[in-house]
Amino acid sequence: MRQRNLSLVLHAVAAHGPLSRAEVAGRIGLTRAAVSTLVDELTRGGLLVELGRTRPGTVGRPGSALALSEQGPAGLGAEIGVDHLAVCAVDLRGRVRARAERAATNRDSAPGRVLRRLAELVRRVEADAKREGLRPAGLAVAVPGLVARDAATVVRAPNLGWQDVDLSRWLPGEAAGPAVWTGLSVDNEANFGALAELWLGGAESPRDFVHVSAEIGIGGAVVLNGELLRGIRGFAGELGHVPVRAEGHPCACGGRGCLEQYAGEEAVLRAAGMTAGEGIPRLRARAADGDAAVLRALRGAGSALGAALAGVVNLLDPQAVVLGGALAELSPWLLPATERELARRLAARPYSEIVVSTLGRDGPLLGAAHSVVQGVLNDPMRAMRGNSA
Amino acid sequence: MRQRNLSLVLHAVAAHGPLSRAEVAGRIGLTRAAVSTLVDELTRGGLLVELGRTRPGTVGRPGSALALSEQGPAGLGAEIGVDHLAVCAVDLRGRVRARAERAATNRDSAPGRVLRRLAELVRRVEADAKREGLRPAGLAVAVPGLVARDAATVVRAPNLGWQDVDLSRWLPGEAAGPAVWTGLSVDNEANFGALAELWLGGAESPRDFVHVSAEIGIGGAVVLNGELLRGIRGFAGELGHVPVRAEGHPCACGGRGCLEQYAGEEAVLRAAGMTAGEGIPRLRARAADGDAAVLRALRGAGSALGAALAGVVNLLDPQAVVLGGALAELSPWLLPATERELARRLAARPYSEIVVSTLGRDGPLLGAAHSVVQGVLNDPMRAMRGNSA
Repeated sequence: MRQRNLSLVLHAVAAHGPLSRAEVAGRIGLTRAAVSTLVDELTRGGLLVELGRTRPGTVGRPGSALALSEQGPAGLGAEIGVDHLAVCAVDLRGRVRARAERAATNRDSAPGRVLRRLAELVRRVEADAKREGLRPAGLAVAVPGLVARDAATVVRAPNLGWQDVDLSRWLPGEAAGPAVWTGLSVDNEANFGALAELWLGGAESPRDFVHVSAEIGIGGAVVLNGELLRGIRGFAGELGHVPVRAEGHPCACGGRGCLEQYAGEEAVLRAAGMTAGEGIPRLRARAADGDAAVLRALRGAGSALGAALAGVVNLLDPQAVVLGGALAELSPWLLPATERELARRLAARPYSEIVVSTLGRDGPLLGAAHSVVQGVLNDPMRAMRGNSA
Repeated sequence: MRQRNLSLVLHAVAAHGPLSRAEVAGRIGLTRAAVSTLVDELTRGGLLVELGRTRPGTVGRPGSALALSEQGPAGLGAEIGVDHLAVCAVDLRGRVRARAERAATNRDSAPGRVLRRLAELVRRVEADAKREGLRPAGLAVAVPGLVARDAATVVRAPNLGWQDVDLSRWLPGEAAGPAVWTGLSVDNEANFGALAELWLGGAESPRDFVHVSAEIGIGGAVVLNGELLRGIRGFAGELGHVPVRAEGHPCACGGRGCLEQYAGEEAVLRAAGMTAGEGIPRLRARAADGDAAVLRALRGAGSALGAALAGVVNLLDPQAVVLGGALAELSPWLLPATERELARRLAARPYSEIVVSTLGRDGPLLGAAHSVVQGVLNDPMRAMRGNSA
């Protein structure tokens, strides 16, 4: 019960802070006396701070405003992309306080090599975060592939060439400092991207949506009533492998005619007559210049996306579809074709709006770091025990 | 709290009964004294009965076994099919106690005519149920179409030709006796079929599955963690309109290449060179006789179903896919092609098993009636108030 109430206080301040003790009490339905006791514990534990007119030596003045600590636990997020690695540290208020990244050629690479490089970046960001007065409380890693539910095993990441890679074996505690390794979690990048949308999108963002993003592959995630749908094995949301052409191009997943083969980065570059190395920025520049082949390729990708989304809307009837990652960057050229296709296939009924994420390519990285912060807000006693140890 | 505890007692007896008071107390974690008070109230209210060694005049002997009443509230379920109407009454133990049906040509029919005929059947079943000593506690109607969430409005039922039909306007209380009309609920037939699977499938049935059924159309429903996914408008589960051929046959929904156009009853009959009137029993007989055209048509339907399910499995990663309705009856000929298609498209990863429902065509009707029974188990105070009134 105490655990739950401590968490309620933190979530109230996270969502609506700064708040006075009385305002917290009003929001969570506890007495002001009970809230004061909880706030004192959270302040001593380094999770809450008092803002404003506090005098030295006074703790817990009822009138002063409470905020989450900027010097408390931090979430470390990491992203293993096909062509880059990134790590960041986010404080309890959700601000990025340290960040490092490097270009990398991770396609068909040995997990050990990639994960040693990732561990270097993690150590660098961890050191920077500590210099800022933060205490890393855990590491969450976003990967482009299927991740086993409640485990740190990448079951299959075709674009990395990985199969059954247990990240906890490759990212040992000794290598990067024990503080980080109190918690290692691994999830699909699209899942973290969707959670970032949920947590960082503000009060008006949908709580019931399908998130679609693209880097090399097409990622997807389903959020229902504010909860990520994981699926029985952890594999839910694989929108990139929904078939859109019955006997279409073979796909790295083993299937045929998957959406990824028509709206993934490589497919679009190929359709535009460009090489894989030219990448999205170049594609975007040419689209902005009105290059006919590029515009045609993007229209084709948008239509394929619309056909897949027609299936998704029929199946889930979500509040919204959110486009993230490269799909957000390309949305001015993709979206008209996608919307036309949806309108054509769902003419007879109302359906979900399509919205474009404002998080861009950072969604998965931020979502990973924020998942650690959410863990602290959900289980503050554990974070405070870590502090006193 | 009392409301919740009364419901816990009923659900424990429903799932595991007959149970003694002590066994109920053990299962729901309340004291035996508290359970005795609740049981007395439920017995007085006509929802529970004592079995076995009770003597006249003694109520609530602690040692006797408790069961749900066979003389208490009943759920009335109704089904509006394209070619039939059916109504049944189910007691609290889940047994069908009265039933009536008639063939009907409901395609492109005026709602008023269909619903007047349905009301006649409801009155007949209600009278039969009362003769059995039951008290109808509400009516739930299954329809082949989109139903607005938390309302009794059929937004669109293309095979009936209905649009925005509010059933509560057409099924007024006076027409069929006030007892029934304490509660009218309307839902998509596939939703009720999936709920029947969940409630009647036994302890080992999956709690996380996609349900696919066919009559004239293809219906679908998604159950996640024991809860029906309704979607933001109530339209979730429309598997029949997931596109399986990008530029395939036009569909009554306004789309193109929808699964229903390849695996729905009419599509299969047409592909087998049969007329729509010949129906599933004849199709099955010819399949059993080894008719090559029929077997080919069923293989084609099975493949189309497999392609749609590959998308569903990628998106939801459910524990199981359950085939119901005509798809269950045809499963010996459909399933090999469906499984081949799934295996081909999901070769690289584990995925959900396909199971065949044992409820056959009765799923939606039984699910509708049971939804009323579930309402009584969830809100027994309301049902008991109805009794004393």
